[in-house]
Amino acid sequence: MSAPANFNGTKPVIDAANAAMLLIDHQSGLFQTVKDMPMTELRANATTLAKIATLANMPVITTASVPQGPNGPLIPEIHKYAPHAKYVARRGEINAWDNPDFVAAVKATGRKQLIIAGTITSVCMAFPAIAAVHEGYQVFTVVDASGTYSKMAQEITLARVVQAGVVPMDTAAVCSEIQKSWNRPDAQQWAEAYSAVFPPYQLLIESYLKAQDVTKKGEVLDSQR
Amino acid sequence: MSAPANFNGTKPVIDAANAAMLLIDHQSGLFQTVKDMPMTELRANATTLAKIATLANMPVITTASVPQGPNGPLIPEIHKYAPHAKYVARRGEINAWDNPDFVAAVKATGRKQLIIAGTITSVCMAFPAIAAVHEGYQVFTVVDASGTYSKMAQEITLARVVQAGVVPMDTAAVCSEIQKSWNRPDAQQWAEAYSAVFPPYQLLIESYLKAQDVTKKGEVLDSQR
Amino acid sequence: MSAPANFNGTKPVIDAANAAMLLIDHQSGLFQTVKDMPMTELRANATTLAKIATLANMPVITTASVPQGPNGPLIPEIHKYAPHAKYVARRGEINAWDNPDFVAAVKATGRKQLIIAGTITSVCMAFPAIAAVHEGYQVFTVVDASGTYSKMAQEITLARVVQAGVVPMDTAAVCSEIQKSWNRPDAQQWAEAYSAVFPPYQLLIESYLKAQDVTKKGEVLDSQR
Amino acid sequence: MSAPANFNGTKPVIDAANAAMLLIDHQSGLFQTVKDMPMTELRANATTLAKIATLANMPVITTASVPQGPNGPLIPEIHKYAPHAKYVARRGEINAWDNPDFVAAVKATGRKQLIIAGTITSVCMAFPAIAAVHEGYQVFTVVDASGTYSKMAQEITLARVVQAGVVPMDTAAVCSEIQKSWNRPDAQQWAEAYSAVFPPYQLLIESYLKAQDVTKKGEVLDSQR
Amino acid sequence: MSAPANFNGTKPVIDAANAAMLLIDHQSGLFQTVKDMPMTELRANATTLAKIATLANMPVITTASVPQGPNGPLIPEIHKYAPHAKYVARRGEINAWDNPDFVAAVKATGRKQLIIAGTITSVCMAFPAIAAVHEGYQVFTVVDASGTYSKMAQEITLARVVQAGVVPMDTAAVCSEIQKSWNRPDAQQWAEAYSAVFPPYQLLIESYLKAQDVTKKGEVLDSQR
Amino acid sequence: MSAPANFNGTKPVIDAANAAMLLIDHQSGLFQTVKDMPMTELRANATTLAKIATLANMPVITTASVPQGPNGPLIPEIHKYAPHAKYVARRGEINAWDNPDFVAAVKATGRKQLIIAGTITSVCMAFPAIAAVHEGYQVFTVVDASGTYSKMAQEITLARVVQAGVVPMDTAAVCSEIQKSWNRPDAQQWAEAYSAVFPPYQLLIESYLKAQDVTKKGEVLDSQR
Amino acid sequence: MSAPANFNGTKPVIDAANAAMLLIDHQSGLFQTVKDMPMTELRANATTLAKIATLANMPVITTASVPQGPNGPLIPEIHKYAPHAKYVARRGEINAWDNPDFVAAVKATGRKQLIIAGTITSVCMAFPAIAAVHEGYQVFTVVDASGTYSKMAQEITLARVVQAGVVPMDTAAVCSEIQKSWNRPDAQQWAEAYSAVFPPYQLLIESYLKAQDVTKKGEVLDSQR
Amino acid sequence: MSAPANFNGTKPVIDAANAAMLLIDHQSGLFQTVKDMPMTELRANATTLAKIATLANMPVITTASVPQGPNGPLIPEIHKYAPHAKYVARRGEINAWDNPDFVAAVKATGRKQLIIAGTITSVCMAFPAIAAVHEGYQVFTVVDASGTYSKMAQEITLARVVQAGVVPMDTAAVCSEIQKSWNRPDAQQWAEAYSAVFPPYQLLIESYLKAQDVTKKGEVLDSQR
Repeated sequence: MSAPANFNGTKPVIDAANAAMLLIDHQSGLFQTVKDMPMTELRANATTLAKIATLANMPVITTASVPQGPNGPLIPEIHKYAPHAKYVARRGEINAWDNPDFVAAVKATGRKQLIIAGTITSVCMAFPAIAAVHEGYQVFTVVDASGTYSKMAQEITLARVVQAGVVPMDTAAVCSEIQKSWNRPDAQQWAEAYSAVFPPYQLLIESYLKAQDVTKKGEVLDSQR
Repeated sequence: MSAPANFNGTKPVIDAANAAMLLIDHQSGLFQTVKDMPMTELRANATTLAKIATLANMPVITTASVPQGPNGPLIPEIHKYAPHAKYVARRGEINAWDNPDFVAAVKATGRKQLIIAGTITSVCMAFPAIAAVHEGYQVFTVVDASGTYSKMAQEITLARVVQAGVVPMDTAAVCSEIQKSWNRPDAQQWAEAYSAVFPPYQLLIESYLKAQDVTKKGEVLDSQR
Repeated sequence: MSAPANFNGTKPVIDAANAAMLLIDHQSGLFQTVKDMPMTELRANATTLAKIATLANMPVITTASVPQGPNGPLIPEIHKYAPHAKYVARRGEINAWDNPDFVAAVKATGRKQLIIAGTITSVCMAFPAIAAVHEGYQVFTVVDASGTYSKMAQEITLARVVQAGVVPMDTAAVCSEIQKSWNRPDAQQWAEAYSAVFPPYQLLIESYLKAQDVTKKGEVLDSQR
Repeated sequence: MSAPANFNGTKPVIDAANAAMLLIDHQSGLFQTVKDMPMTELRANATTLAKIATLANMPVITTASVPQGPNGPLIPEIHKYAPHAKYVARRGEINAWDNPDFVAAVKATGRKQLIIAGTITSVCMAFPAIAAVHEGYQVFTVVDASGTYSKMAQEITLARVVQAGVVPMDTAAVCSEIQKSWNRPDAQQWAEAYSAVFPPYQLLIESYLKAQDVTKKGEVLDSQR
Repeated sequence: MSAPANFNGTKPVIDAANAAMLLIDHQSGLFQTVKDMPMTELRANATTLAKIATLANMPVITTASVPQGPNGPLIPEIHKYAPHAKYVARRGEINAWDNPDFVAAVKATGRKQLIIAGTITSVCMAFPAIAAVHEGYQVFTVVDASGTYSKMAQEITLARVVQAGVVPMDTAAVCSEIQKSWNRPDAQQWAEAYSAVFPPYQLLIESYLKAQDVTKKGEVLDSQR
Repeated sequence: MSAPANFNGTKPVIDAANAAMLLIDHQSGLFQTVKDMPMTELRANATTLAKIATLANMPVITTASVPQGPNGPLIPEIHKYAPHAKYVARRGEINAWDNPDFVAAVKATGRKQLIIAGTITSVCMAFPAIAAVHEGYQVFTVVDASGTYSKMAQEITLARVVQAGVVPMDTAAVCSEIQKSWNRPDAQQWAEAYSAVFPPYQLLIESYLKAQDVTKKGEVLDSQR
Repeated sequence: MSAPANFNGTKPVIDAANAAMLLIDHQSGLFQTVKDMPMTELRANATTLAKIATLANMPVITTASVPQGPNGPLIPEIHKYAPHAKYVARRGEINAWDNPDFVAAVKATGRKQLIIAGTITSVCMAFPAIAAVHEGYQVFTVVDASGTYSKMAQEITLARVVQAGVVPMDTAAVCSEIQKSWNRPDAQQWAEAYSAVFPPYQLLIESYLKAQDVTKKGEVLDSQR
Repeated sequence: MSAPANFNGTKPVIDAANAAMLLIDHQSGLFQTVKDMPMTELRANATTLAKIATLANMPVITTASVPQGPNGPLIPEIHKYAPHAKYVARRGEINAWDNPDFVAAVKATGRKQLIIAGTITSVCMAFPAIAAVHEGYQVFTVVDASGTYSKMAQEITLARVVQAGVVPMDTAAVCSEIQKSWNRPDAQQWAEAYSAVFPPYQLLIESYLKAQDVTKKGEVLDSQR
């Protein structure tokens, strides 16, 4: 089952109209143990997924692992930028898919594709992803909107979920596969969402606008005054 | 056979009631040649597997490669924390699975799933894993509770075992897939086992308890005295 | 479909007479966000692909993502070294394969194999590659003539395209698989193309020629004068 | 002169009442060439210096190198968070200290200590720092609120400025040496400034507040419901 | 003053009979922000300093920065292994040397050499070190028993304290310079302290003892049975 | 075909009696372009393969790519330690398998398993490996006895050959899978071969022998004299 | 003498009218042993120094270490871009300063400041630098236009030359300290020289020109057609 | 005293006729704890120092720290390649300079310059170096022929010894400063010594000789046959 599972010959890509997003255990305590990527990038990537889901009117389900304990609270950005997200409290189950309320919430969306991110990657992202594949969903995991305690653990998990038929994605690919085109009325909002994830892109825009401004206003170079 | 082997459509996850743990060649000499990960993490991970097996009443089999020679003795933590583990002395076979006593010990457990870690990874972990797949077992290898002489050797081995139908795991995923829930009477013992593997988690707990203590005791901030 | 797709038992290698090259979104703005490899190597690799296609009389199709905006213009080397390349302007589609003109241009080549590089990797390279596989092409992606914002994003994308049946290649493999032999009249031109990609090879040639020169001219070592 | 220059036996530390801050050439184009540290950290550090100067009522002077050209505009955060900063336009001089208006602005502050950050480090930070030492100022350079094209270039520059009698600082040390105590009415504003520079600290605060909240409200752990 | 300060021609080394140890702000929250070295090594190094001070009957003074807040509590190992340590509560001063009680405690030791470690390095270690030099102490800073948020920040701080006349040390050098000889009655206790800091050394000892055991007991190699 | 190709249900491991070793283009010039691993390790690994083949009486075939040009001569160790190796001169073909003499030499061995290493990895190792799979051989590639110009190129190649049904191996796994047991008359010769590849293992042996010697001779510790 | 040597209170900066440039042993063979920085950057940096010296009419002296042997020939760019450079053949002396012709050539320039780069750094750059300081010159060494076999060797050498009173520089600082201002007739030529060393800067210029072009020509965004 | 100590205005370079070499604690057990550089390079560098001392007829003194214990025996290469070296057994003193026999042996050489390498760096190299400076010797430490447990510990030690007036050296600089010229009868022996330390140089020589051979023998390129 190491080909993308449950696609049955269809193209293994996201269909925004048929997908739901599951954001699992992005909690301030767990984030402090993340070592496979800069935590700031993880936080920006998870936040961007929330924004993108909102722009695309995609259902979002969140959950947390004992947020009253050392794992800490969910980072607030997720519900801030996806105010329509539904939060499901678990009863200690490590695999969110073992919680009946969580599975019920997923089913209630009526979607057949699931986009899953979770911290820590090998557990909170991988366990529900493998379970969902087994129940017939087409599953995409966003490995760099998840985080874990070592680069090696992330690499092992990537191999495991691919072997199980899950499609591995990075945040940028998820966003672009949902957006599909810049030729749309809300293009500007998408651009703003990207700038938050890709600070280098913000530099590009700043430099671009200034360069055009210099031309429009006929500014003289300081070195030629 | 690059899908998980021998699962026949069942979900490729650990079933704690049907699994045995094989801890192979975790010896003090071999540990000195490990370069793919910090040796201290390897030692903590292997030790944690022993603890977890004990908590889960899971059979453990250990063995060593000529411990009277430069490879050195088994690290003592494994039998200390898994006192029920059965040690099998080999007669020089490099692949533990080539030793009839070892295979007999595995069969005697009656389990159909094997969780295997071994140093060095590409030999002591990979050889028995591939052999066990060939004999019909469902095999999980714990890549970061094994160790080898270069990151590249570890990556090559990961590819090889996945190609052979073995399920790759990291230590945290093994522990959590066995534990399944925090809603269990022995939850505290599991938390203690984790702290040893994840020193950052120990910090979380220390900070968490102090923060609650300050509230409970009404402590004043030093800077506000 | 994780075996090479659409080869139907034939050897999964490039057939220069049946392949077209697609160079997508190699733009100066996007290049500034590349972090998975040195940008200078990316630029040299993309340029070399253009040179090689010209030497092999292979069709080349280029395109850019809104080059009037912050993404910036195509790097000029590509059309300079592949003057026969056909440029297709898109209308904002992120996946080049979503643009009918682009697909038409590919079909017009009559080739059944596609060699694809694109920046950013997980989007501009991966999206058209997966789409082309779905339409029956044999697809090769040149991962190090593409670039993206993190090493992890590159690794995730490699896993995704391989899972989808795409053959992953590095620039050197593409060049050599097309060239096939040094025993050809234009061997010198191929060597020159390589020197640009592999600066260490330029050193080898310089040292080699000097060493032979010393012998031919009977030069005395400075230290023996 | 490799001891801290111009201190004449006084302690080589910042005296907030006698210092001015010079923020030089933090421009969006130049930022795209920075490779010695994550650009996002550089941007956050430079921004924090601006905030801190405002909190401490410290004079700030900014300048840019031909912002009408490829170097791009100043990043807007600096004047946003230090609205009292004085901008000095240069006439192409690479060393800001070669511009008479810039030196006049420095003198007009009446301060004898200068805290200097600039991109690129070996030029925009180092040149004015060495010049100012020569004119009798006590000079502190903030190496990680400056940025350059390689880690090696940063290390060479650190050695050069230290050799010249400049005191090397990191952003946190500058902030703390100016703040001096948490026992002050505006402590909360300082904490907020730090959170922006040190995202891990934001996590600490989030976890801390939640842990106390659980105690105050008597929340039950999810796993014990 | 970039030669070791206040030595006046004497050898710049630790004199155990004349030194006091200052362990500053080793707190669980601050430890979560450490990125210049593995946190586990930092924790082990700080703990070892406490043990060594006890073995050498050296005065130890500890302090913490607002331990009731997000910085978290002191790690318990320090007072556990240096039960004679004196804790000084500050009133919000960032530089411990700005707190009169702290300075009084230092003076009360009657020692003229200070061995200082503190988290974060550029602040909690560097500020008191520079202040103490200014007041005539011979100061040693233990850079790898301190920790900070980036390798670059650590390097800048190393340059700053050396420039200020402080002697930079690593943990092993501090331990050995105090111990001086293995030919002492308590040698075994020193060896045990080292094993905790240097896990590779623990492996050496395990292998060494086993190798001797094999000889003493005449064990046969497993491969020769 | 991403499962190990041509094994038809047999275990995908080396059968020393049925395998031949192909060592391709290990040349001094090409070695100077290797950047994916330390060149010294590559050289040691390739040399060890030659030694092991000799110990196991395994056929070896070598070849070089235009050794009269900048690629340079074969490293002499290979024929030194595998004096029975057969050298096949090519006529400029880049893929050794395109040379009829080379294929004929392979066939003449009568072996059905091929162990292949070559520099550069993505070309000299990968091309013949993929071709041999296509002709029905069971193929093992030794990725760390090959070398290439970047880690990324190595990773891409690993993915490509695995996808093509080749079994990926590291040098240690090849050696051990051929040796099978330490309980053999020539065990000492195998240990010596390993020491050359694994310098850390040489340290183990030196320490081990000394530790036993101290016991045997009753040496007193220097520190106790 | 660890303050900049021989400046006698003057500012330790380059005076273009009083400096000569010494480019030592930049040979194709030696370049193949460089590991402290990317060889391509080293080659670009050394080439840029040659260009800059030409733009500034600064004397250049070159030499090579036994270029008839394995060290290989001088890279041709140096004399190509500094056609006025004087080549001095040595007679085997490792330290160029030990060759009387070389010293005579330096003296003949009449300059009192020397800018020195050489491969390998710890020998070819450091030895003449230390010797020249001893003879009263003001010496600047360009550490990243030199190269050596490990980062550690480079760091040790940096410490040694600084200790000896040499001023350490990176290539960008040398260029800018010589250029001084963009407000000069030949500014465009300097910009071109920089682009060769700083490929990211080339991207900036390409993006900048395109952005202005879009405005000037009123181009419509592709996504808005 | 951070200028090179005890040179009194003479040039801070090695005078081979006035120098002795001290090789301290290069033991197989300690080598297993080295993490600041590849152990194989450390072993090669230490060995090369022994060879060079022999070529230069320079006195060598060796010693070991309790070689009967876990630290292990001296690596045999040192006395093998410097058969004239004098071994001094200590009585447990950590600082070799604290052992009267060792100091007496140093004095007996009559040399005033000391070249010191030792494992571990911050102790076995640094302690005697600082002590020797204090007794009036001119001291050179070979940092990359020493080794320690972290890169950070090495960097701290470099700063400490430089601050104390010791001259820091890398192995290549030591060799070249002693050799001085290739124009000497034993030049070939020096070249052989270098090849062992610099394996890339061995490749250069192999390629060089082959290139000349092709010319001399008129070999035809394989690709042109």
